[in-house]
Amino acid sequence: MFKIERIAIVGVGLIGGSTALALKRAGVVGEVIGVGRNAASLAEAKRLNVIDRACDLAEAAAIADCILIATPVRQMPAIFATVAPHLKANALVMDAGSTKQDVVAAARIGLDHKIAQFVPAHPIAGREIAGVAAADAALYKGKKVVLTPVVENPPEAIARAEAIWRACGATVQAMSAEAHDAIFAAVSHLPHLLAFALVDEFAGRPNAKTLFAFAASGFRDFTRIAGSHPEMWRDIALNNREALLAEMDLYIKKIGQFRELVAQSDAAQIEAVMQRSHDAKANWLAGDLEYFRDESV
Amino acid sequence: MFKIERIAIVGVGLIGGSTALALKRAGVVGEVIGVGRNAASLAEAKRLNVIDRACDLAEAAAIADCILIATPVRQMPAIFATVAPHLKANALVMDAGSTKQDVVAAARIGLDHKIAQFVPAHPIAGREIAGVAAADAALYKGKKVVLTPVVENPPEAIARAEAIWRACGATVQAMSAEAHDAIFAAVSHLPHLLAFALVDEFAGRPNAKTLFAFAASGFRDFTRIAGSHPEMWRDIALNNREALLAEMDLYIKKIGQFRELVAQSDAAQIEAVMQRSHDAKANWLAGDLEYFRDESV
Repeated sequence: MFKIERIAIVGVGLIGGSTALALKRAGVVGEVIGVGRNAASLAEAKRLNVIDRACDLAEAAAIADCILIATPVRQMPAIFATVAPHLKANALVMDAGSTKQDVVAAARIGLDHKIAQFVPAHPIAGREIAGVAAADAALYKGKKVVLTPVVENPPEAIARAEAIWRACGATVQAMSAEAHDAIFAAVSHLPHLLAFALVDEFAGRPNAKTLFAFAASGFRDFTRIAGSHPEMWRDIALNNREALLAEMDLYIKKIGQFRELVAQSDAAQIEAVMQRSHDAKANWLAGDLEYFRDESV
Repeated sequence: MFKIERIAIVGVGLIGGSTALALKRAGVVGEVIGVGRNAASLAEAKRLNVIDRACDLAEAAAIADCILIATPVRQMPAIFATVAPHLKANALVMDAGSTKQDVVAAARIGLDHKIAQFVPAHPIAGREIAGVAAADAALYKGKKVVLTPVVENPPEAIARAEAIWRACGATVQAMSAEAHDAIFAAVSHLPHLLAFALVDEFAGRPNAKTLFAFAASGFRDFTRIAGSHPEMWRDIALNNREALLAEMDLYIKKIGQFRELVAQSDAAQIEAVMQRSHDAKANWLAGDLEYFRDESV
């Protein structure tokens, strides 16, 4: 079994905190150092035994064998630049960002010739609750972590990153940063923006109180992700802009077409959309991925 | 305590079946008669003790003290016309449809001078699972039922309808059919169509298999309602068309505005939408309706 002597968690929220707890439970980490903007939050992380102690970023970078950056993605460029001069030669750097091309570009600038030490990672384990109090050693159990390695990564660095996420209970898959950003613009970033927009639309109405009084479980689940962390999702929208705009345009087009079917009372085509959706959902929930088209390869 | 000697449930699915079970559990019903299109489904309902026996619609109408029509709404005009000649003078007729102006209009035609016996009802307790196997005596516990009485209803008929739904565990509220259809176009019908459209959009892509392979819990909850009953929702879309089109237009406009904020990388306004949505969601989940605007009265 591998062991990380000392890990630095930069941004000790749901993701950073859960990683710390999962690695502690797996018994593969020595000391956990927390780094963050908010002293109260770091104190809470220490009280909850998520971290062993807090210190500043440069100090943490100088002594850590592994650094996990689990902040909103637009904080990462400054973090890469700060840690770069201090990094131990064999330290592994990972992020946990929901976008990857932007993070890789920032790492190339900030880490410069130390880019080989950076293995980009995206644990697919979001929740709409944020903060270290929500951290959970079991968060990654059965979840996916996507790695988007850079060409400079030696195989040992990628293997180490994989081992860390597997120790957290996740399965690990690798793909290009471009493929990652396109896939998650569709299945994650777009739905988040759609949910944020719907709740804000209703909350801004003169009869908002009545609307929310009669909103039921369907609305609650549809908009669960509209309770997500605003700063984190602002950064994702900004940093995966091109892929997200493409998805928004496709969805606006799709909804426009659906609107026309309703306007024309086209019963057969309305039901066809719903039936295809119903069947896709049922097959997906049953775990039958072979049901779906796979003509992209 | 009131008692219904004999209730006829027309359409023994999730809603009809759950009502039968709830009334049986409350001990306020004598015999439950099931009426439906599908013999196998009625046999299952009998096997599950949801109904005591099945019979045809005209016969059921002739002997029932209460008739609950829990079919997709576009089946209701024919059902009203069939039951009208057979109705007992003191029988109460209710529906459980998700749209109300259309059902009231159909009842006026089908029931004609017996319209006073019809109290329109909408139990707000949908699930994405359909069929009698999903019927649950506790489905209505803590849920709302909206009544949209017609001017002809005597107070006793409305009181009887209220008592029945209260016996099922629900709270009962009355409003106009117009108000009902506008509210539910927003908080229920629109989100269903948005979810159906999103799942169908991805299911139709050449890389659908990859998209569904990486879709996670946020997508699962956002699209839970995309697994709903296609025929039922087709009928809702057709029968609440005007209100739904108005909501679709407002949402398409809202998403278009959000798209422009992303296209312009307007960090402050993107975060503002997300923060307002986050705060509205938190207050709603906390049950604080006073947080919301109420300028419509």
